[in-house]
Amino acid sequence: MEAVRSCSEVYLETYTSLLTNTPISTLESFYGKTIIEADRETVESNAERILANAASSNVAFLVVGDPYGATTHTDLEIRARELKIEVVKIHNASIMNAIGAAGLQLYKYGETVSIVFFTETWRPDSFYDKILANRRSGLHTLCLLDIKTKEPTLESLARGKPVYEPPRFMTVNQAVEQLLEVEGRRGEGAYGEETMCVGVARVGSRGQRIVAGAMGRLREVEFGGPLHSLVIAGEMHELEEKMLRTYFDVDVVGKAVEEEEEEEGG
Amino acid sequence: MEAVRSCSEVYLETYTSLLTNTPISTLESFYGKTIIEADRETVESNAERILANAASSNVAFLVVGDPYGATTHTDLEIRARELKIEVVKIHNASIMNAIGAAGLQLYKYGETVSIVFFTETWRPDSFYDKILANRRSGLHTLCLLDIKTKEPTLESLARGKPVYEPPRFMTVNQAVEQLLEVEGRRGEGAYGEETMCVGVARVGSRGQRIVAGAMGRLREVEFGGPLHSLVIAGEMHELEEKMLRTYFDVDVVGKAVEEEEEEEGG
Repeated sequence: MEAVRSCSEVYLETYTSLLTNTPISTLESFYGKTIIEADRETVESNAERILANAASSNVAFLVVGDPYGATTHTDLEIRARELKIEVVKIHNASIMNAIGAAGLQLYKYGETVSIVFFTETWRPDSFYDKILANRRSGLHTLCLLDIKTKEPTLESLARGKPVYEPPRFMTVNQAVEQLLEVEGRRGEGAYGEETMCVGVARVGSRGQRIVAGAMGRLREVEFGGPLHSLVIAGEMHELEEKMLRTYFDVDVVGKAVEEEEEEEGG
Repeated sequence: MEAVRSCSEVYLETYTSLLTNTPISTLESFYGKTIIEADRETVESNAERILANAASSNVAFLVVGDPYGATTHTDLEIRARELKIEVVKIHNASIMNAIGAAGLQLYKYGETVSIVFFTETWRPDSFYDKILANRRSGLHTLCLLDIKTKEPTLESLARGKPVYEPPRFMTVNQAVEQLLEVEGRRGEGAYGEETMCVGVARVGSRGQRIVAGAMGRLREVEFGGPLHSLVIAGEMHELEEKMLRTYFDVDVVGKAVEEEEEEEGG
């Protein structure tokens, strides 16, 4: 809070994650600062703009999660250091450790995978080999689910003047559909309908929802609004199984979830 | 802050991690609460004491890092939920994600390993197979280094009245010694003197120190006070190599480190 309040400019990165239940205006009044939203284009192609005043005054670059959660953040740090600008990082919880809430021990996770929205012609399955390797080693897999914010439509790109599609956030249900489609195609038994999984939504917020169950079963579970993530379990210790049983098709925070969903009209 | 201030009892878990640069008295005046230190015995054998008043009033259990960083914390949650006590978790940065500061991308880490202090007769090397598997898959390995707080001496145990050894925290240097000893014994080429590593100390504090270099080289680097961790790199992308080059035997925060070390007389 003190760090942000000391800044002349405050950016908020808005394309790798999403603030749950906190409008930007709330942040602005908390910090007493105008917040400039930084989309992918700003961060990747116009980093000079963010760094322009950082040599002579404090500039904040806020992210949802930890500052090292996304490659582009690291890239921004390297650019800053090349310009001899001092970079101070303030760490924070991120899905990479808050996923501990799913009930499986963090040190037993293998490589993290990303699952992107399939299109008619582009159905990449590079996650499959990674999940297979993790499962063969008895390790859990965190699946980060795709986020599309401010994507230009193909038609608008062809016309040379970008028009943006509405933001999309992959649900646990969609992820499971894609995972099972790829298992059907590859057939190497990395996982299947019966594989134990944990779906999580809005982790760390009051309205979080965590449901454990067979992968096929999670296809039908309603998790509510974004962001969602999915864990594919590996071998489990007794304590982990015990924790997962408490998440079999129940809400973690019980009543609070329903209240919050009603407020949001969801 | 508000959550802790609402509590009738506040515990601080003191055996899986260490508060860097913050005496408990500082926390006590910040929260306006007396803080009860909870060692391993209290948490593992006397959890009832912590949970005794939690049904009728708010009780805080503070940990350094994220609430799901240690198995015993999960166990405490399960006990509480068995007693129908509502458990609210507030996530935080932990070494499991703050290790992103080492410059290697979090999603490319494999299974995390723990390295315990070798004794004359007990030199466990179960970490070796895990590092080997990670390295074969091109993945980075986070090595969590042993912490011994309030360990009874063997002699005192024999006498039935525990006398405790002074706390010990494994350094990067000690970890490297043990790792190379095990490679010498096993000889399967999981890593060696020339393997790229990153040693980190006091991550997230103003006096943090991060040094990248060949494993053998890190044996000689002075990292200062606890806590230390070590990363053994897997395959690296260009961006990761670029980040690591900025950590070749230099302090991240430059001058701030020296100042802090002087203050501490270290």
